Amino acid sequence: MKDTGKGVCCKGFKAAGIKEGRNGLALISSEKEANCAVMITSNRVKAAPLIVSGRHAKKGKIKGIVISSGNANAYTGKQGIKDAEAMCSIASKELGLKKEDLLVASTGVIGRKMDMQVIERQIKEAARGLSSKKEGSRNAANAIMTTDTLPKSVSVKTQLKSGVEIEVGGIAKGAGMVAPDLRHATMLCFLTTDAYVPDNLIKKCLETAVSTSFNNTIIDWDMSTNDIVVLMANGTADDGDGDMDVDSTFQDALNHVTTKLAKMLAKNAEGATKFIEFEVKNAKTDDDAKKAARAVAGSSLVKSAIYGKDPNWGRIVAALGYSGADIDPDGMSLFLQNIKDEVCLVERGKVRAYQDSGELKAAEKILDADEIKITIDLHMGTKNAHVFGCDLTPEYVRINSEYST
Amino acid sequence: MKDTGKGVCCKGFKAAGIKEGRNGLALISSEKEANCAVMITSNRVKAAPLIVSGRHAKKGKIKGIVISSGNANAYTGKQGIKDAEAMCSIASKELGLKKEDLLVASTGVIGRKMDMQVIERQIKEAARGLSSKKEGSRNAANAIMTTDTLPKSVSVKTQLKSGVEIEVGGIAKGAGMVAPDLRHATMLCFLTTDAYVPDNLIKKCLETAVSTSFNNTIIDWDMSTNDIVVLMANGTADDGDGDMDVDSTFQDALNHVTTKLAKMLAKNAEGATKFIEFEVKNAKTDDDAKKAARAVAGSSLVKSAIYGKDPNWGRIVAALGYSGADIDPDGMSLFLQNIKDEVCLVERGKVRAYQDSGELKAAEKILDADEIKITIDLHMGTKNAHVFGCDLTPEYVRINSEYST
Repeated sequence: MKDTGKGVCCKGFKAAGIKEGRNGLALISSEKEANCAVMITSNRVKAAPLIVSGRHAKKGKIKGIVISSGNANAYTGKQGIKDAEAMCSIASKELGLKKEDLLVASTGVIGRKMDMQVIERQIKEAARGLSSKKEGSRNAANAIMTTDTLPKSVSVKTQLKSGVEIEVGGIAKGAGMVAPDLRHATMLCFLTTDAYVPDNLIKKCLETAVSTSFNNTIIDWDMSTNDIVVLMANGTADDGDGDMDVDSTFQDALNHVTTKLAKMLAKNAEGATKFIEFEVKNAKTDDDAKKAARAVAGSSLVKSAIYGKDPNWGRIVAALGYSGADIDPDGMSLFLQNIKDEVCLVERGKVRAYQDSGELKAAEKILDADEIKITIDLHMGTKNAHVFGCDLTPEYVRINSEYST
Repeated sequence: MKDTGKGVCCKGFKAAGIKEGRNGLALISSEKEANCAVMITSNRVKAAPLIVSGRHAKKGKIKGIVISSGNANAYTGKQGIKDAEAMCSIASKELGLKKEDLLVASTGVIGRKMDMQVIERQIKEAARGLSSKKEGSRNAANAIMTTDTLPKSVSVKTQLKSGVEIEVGGIAKGAGMVAPDLRHATMLCFLTTDAYVPDNLIKKCLETAVSTSFNNTIIDWDMSTNDIVVLMANGTADDGDGDMDVDSTFQDALNHVTTKLAKMLAKNAEGATKFIEFEVKNAKTDDDAKKAARAVAGSSLVKSAIYGKDPNWGRIVAALGYSGADIDPDGMSLFLQNIKDEVCLVERGKVRAYQDSGELKAAEKILDADEIKITIDLHMGTKNAHVFGCDLTPEYVRINSEYST
């Protein structure tokens, strides 16, 4: 699907963003009340804005979101809750809304008091700058970044089976602290659509999209206190006479947007030099496939080896061995690919990439590429899993060794 | 307890070791048949020597161990089993034993065929060099190293309640791929004692010692295909008239040796610049205490921050939040210590190390030390856990990005 470049600025949505050093602020607003679905971190320590957003999202309808970057407003006690509520109040006044019409999200350092003077000034400025043009979304995507070096934005148009044309867009941030969780999201992501998605469907649509995208992305094993994914659907795509029932084409478009954003997260992960796709094929169960793919994608040793272009495939075997997945070490196959080439490292338990073999040399060459794919065929059943990941680099450590200071 | 400097060369034991570039070989032998206990990796992919050692250890009595470094002899199929058996055969001939009298262990790169010519020559040379002096143990400890930069050896003397003096010693290697597992060991470790430890006790003694030492050591989350811990007890401490019944003094000495070796592993971990002890106090259950300590000790973000001397304690809070342990974020306390100073970062949910606070400055200073302790008081119950760990450094990534090439 072709990117429309609009980001979250689908029909009936406006966005704005300001970035001043580490302090960023973004606003997203819908001209009409939008149905919404929210997924938040399963971390027991939940940041104040998530608690406030949880309350405001209960009625299932919102008109906008206010997002700050630089300070997570996490582990900030009652004052943190007050500050998150104040963010909604200030923004709602600027936009002529009730504070309950807004969700709030923050990202940044944990355990610090918000500087509400800066926040207030930035909200006012952002409200004045709200735009329905692509620049609005671009500024918002830029404003929510922390250690990200690139803004992440995807938007696509599709046609419902009824013929009505709809658009789905999203922006995201997240470059570390990205781990898959079985039920919830793992970074900040704001999705908008001009489709009409009824109350009773919107949560399921979002969960489906997240389960195959963000929940299959591994950067490190840390899980944030601030993760949130929001989907707003304002139903403005049609003027009233078209059949707006969402169908599989909407879900496909939403999956496309979240999957593309998830890949962008992995590609732009802290310090990463390589994007890696992990595919596990023919596992006995879905759970086996997932466990196997996640163990390999999450292995510091596999990730370090790929950074060094060292085809040390034995570490993949070791990670499969401790993954908890049901595997047959003597029956599995391993492949390494890039966009041009593929090499079989192990074929049904038989090592082909032994020392000084042509296969090992080919593998070294394949690892030169920026995008790598590792395929593991377990030959045990019919279930598959995909995980997006990246290499582990000295730069990852450097970035995370000086983040808060 | 004072180190005797003998390593595995307790009474009645000899050792030898050769190191030629990456290829190392060590022998440990007992003049009398020794009772033995073995713990191996729970990785589904088990290296050939572990399979062979499993067979040879079944009868509970052995006379020695042959160990090679440089090649793991893992994922090497039937040839690997043959090679591991051949290592026992060659060594047994040199020592005038049956091949079943020996255990075998290897460490190094996975998926490569053994170079048996080198191995055979090295075994013969090592057999000729067997020594009951401390040099024998020192050479063995040196021979089994891979990315270790320091050999690891501990030995202590103690007196059984009966008055008989015994010695317990051990050598270990392991600098990466060290993760706790609930039942098994996590690196190579060879323990000897001249105490008499009966068949029906020796396994339990070893499991007890491992559970509080190696199983509480976290370097990365990877788990090797080759981990093995062996305890040999040859009962030569007394000439026949003393009461040799092992009691808690033996267990204490064994725990002391394994705990000290475990700390050495964490201190000498790949690329590590800091040793970190994690203590969780007053958890509801043992499991909660362990989960909390392991999550914090295993967090790449916590480890990177400590490398950078960045007192980013919010990451500790985040790790506790996703640990799966039952915690009360608003009721817990966090402390940071080194040998000289201590600072309270959070007191029963109240942040004391806020930005620009004296506590935060004190925390920065404490992080200058090479040995750090993080104490987490959950104030939920009475259960405690200790974990040994280290920081994550660019050097860890560098070492692991070029290991096999």
